[in-house]
Amino acid sequence: MTELLESLLPAIETELQRQIARLDQPRLEPFHDMLTYHMGWSGEGAGPEATGKRVRPLLTLLTSAASGTDWQPALPAAAAVELVHNFSLVHDDIQDNSEKRHGRPTTWVKWGAPLAINVGDALFVLSNLALTDLSEAYPAESVLHVAQILHETCLDLTRGQYLDMSYESRNDLSIDDYWPMIAGKTAALLAACCQIGAILGEADEAAVAVYRDFGHYLGLAFQVQDDILGIWGDETTTGKSTASDLLEGKKSLPVLFGLSKNGPFAQRWLGGPLTIAEVPALAEQLAREGARDYTQQAADQMTDLAIQSLRLADPQDEAGETLSDLANRLLKREG
Amino acid sequence: MTELLESLLPAIETELQRQIARLDQPRLEPFHDMLTYHMGWSGEGAGPEATGKRVRPLLTLLTSAASGTDWQPALPAAAAVELVHNFSLVHDDIQDNSEKRHGRPTTWVKWGAPLAINVGDALFVLSNLALTDLSEAYPAESVLHVAQILHETCLDLTRGQYLDMSYESRNDLSIDDYWPMIAGKTAALLAACCQIGAILGEADEAAVAVYRDFGHYLGLAFQVQDDILGIWGDETTTGKSTASDLLEGKKSLPVLFGLSKNGPFAQRWLGGPLTIAEVPALAEQLAREGARDYTQQAADQMTDLAIQSLRLADPQDEAGETLSDLANRLLKREG
Repeated sequence: MTELLESLLPAIETELQRQIARLDQPRLEPFHDMLTYHMGWSGEGAGPEATGKRVRPLLTLLTSAASGTDWQPALPAAAAVELVHNFSLVHDDIQDNSEKRHGRPTTWVKWGAPLAINVGDALFVLSNLALTDLSEAYPAESVLHVAQILHETCLDLTRGQYLDMSYESRNDLSIDDYWPMIAGKTAALLAACCQIGAILGEADEAAVAVYRDFGHYLGLAFQVQDDILGIWGDETTTGKSTASDLLEGKKSLPVLFGLSKNGPFAQRWLGGPLTIAEVPALAEQLAREGARDYTQQAADQMTDLAIQSLRLADPQDEAGETLSDLANRLLKREG
Repeated sequence: MTELLESLLPAIETELQRQIARLDQPRLEPFHDMLTYHMGWSGEGAGPEATGKRVRPLLTLLTSAASGTDWQPALPAAAAVELVHNFSLVHDDIQDNSEKRHGRPTTWVKWGAPLAINVGDALFVLSNLALTDLSEAYPAESVLHVAQILHETCLDLTRGQYLDMSYESRNDLSIDDYWPMIAGKTAALLAACCQIGAILGEADEAAVAVYRDFGHYLGLAFQVQDDILGIWGDETTTGKSTASDLLEGKKSLPVLFGLSKNGPFAQRWLGGPLTIAEVPALAEQLAREGARDYTQQAADQMTDLAIQSLRLADPQDEAGETLSDLANRLLKREG
């Protein structure tokens, strides 16, 4: 970990705690506790393993610093993007019926869906409130510009989420249906993090645009990689069952490729739910039909586009190096 | 209906439709349809009966106009408060397991909770985006001020919602626990509507404060009235079963009063769930113990405070009269 990351990561946690402390009030302690549990700070299994990697706030602060300004005043924006991410995780876990996150019971498992919906809503509201804190350091016009970007991004998240859920019951999908879904679900927020960081870093318009592209392609590459790991990944490095994407019937890129081939994989897939025992052979069959190579090529292509965009953005100093390292770490990840 | 209301109501619907049309895009039609269904514009039972009364946007536009400015530029703010209200209704219906709203199946009943959570999230995001449209007519500082108020209000909504849900399983509550809950759930948004309208209407600080008080007390009075109707109301005018609040175990003001008396009502209440057959006699018993009079007095007191605040705000012209009429209609409502 670079020296810069050693400053950024604790500053991000402190800022997030400060934002969430708006709920640390009489009668509301148990509600506040639900948010701090979800954020990984309290309750069973709390600690660095439970907080997630804080990729989004890091991207925001690093793009800001790599544009040549101090990252400290951008902290509320970094908190805002992480709060948006966590709002979407809490609702996602309810929607997907996911019982574990970072190896811990999810919020709805601990407190039930009604309270967990409210936890997600509160995280979302807190992201809005965090943004308003930017007024202390930035002109009102910049704050509104950043807010507009984040709100548009949140609408993209709901669009992606809708597509993801609506795809579950459909078997008439093509590969073309894949990209709008992950653009909304994954890439939009990473693009916004980089764009917002660059705006607050006073980058010129062209640099803001390529930083945004960088985040967008980073998000696409990351998601496509995740689709590969979800079927052919090593359980010990990903921390989740490699069988899960096929078992859950997720319409990931390899599956959509396999369906388009209309071969033995598609026949079995369309034949109804799989048993755990069938999964390894079907994953192999899918690879034999070319889905793994196709998906890896797509991931490589998105990775190249991300790296090219970052090069064009020409990030400066230690922040620039750290940003490149972070991107490489995310794109070459094994788990 | 006054001439002014005849202009305002269709303008509000048009503005809401314009905001929600952000989701009217390829692949997203069914998602857009879920929002237009909830708003009362499409699907079974669509029409004026299904839209609700649009009290919140009316308050925003009327306070703006009663401060002496045009109401038209404030339309995005009016849409924003109504979208916030509807976001909270969609999530509320899931959380409360409510199957009907305005006599129609709720969103989660029609499409399931996962998609309905996303519909609520989208309505919330759209309220944020609506606010950013204010930049076309108002300085960035005013837009940020209004946004800050609405975000604080949304946090109040989640606080109130948490209290409401957490009270369900508690029998150690006192009357003091009632007010923070309804202040968040009901009064905060009405207060924000009036405050925002006054700010956009360029009212001076003192007038903004009393308009805010007006909305706050209006909300409290409205909710306390609703508690009375929920136990002793006439089913034919309220459109919901009068038994429902007692049957559902709702910790409304009359119930908290009855529990504090620790008499026959409290004994039966603490004895476990009621049957429908027991409800009429228990409602009478609760009235005999003084709960109905006590609650009516509280409603009258809040009504007086609302009317006094409105008088202090000194609303002008036709908008001022319409605002007073609207308040009277809400406070003296039979259903």
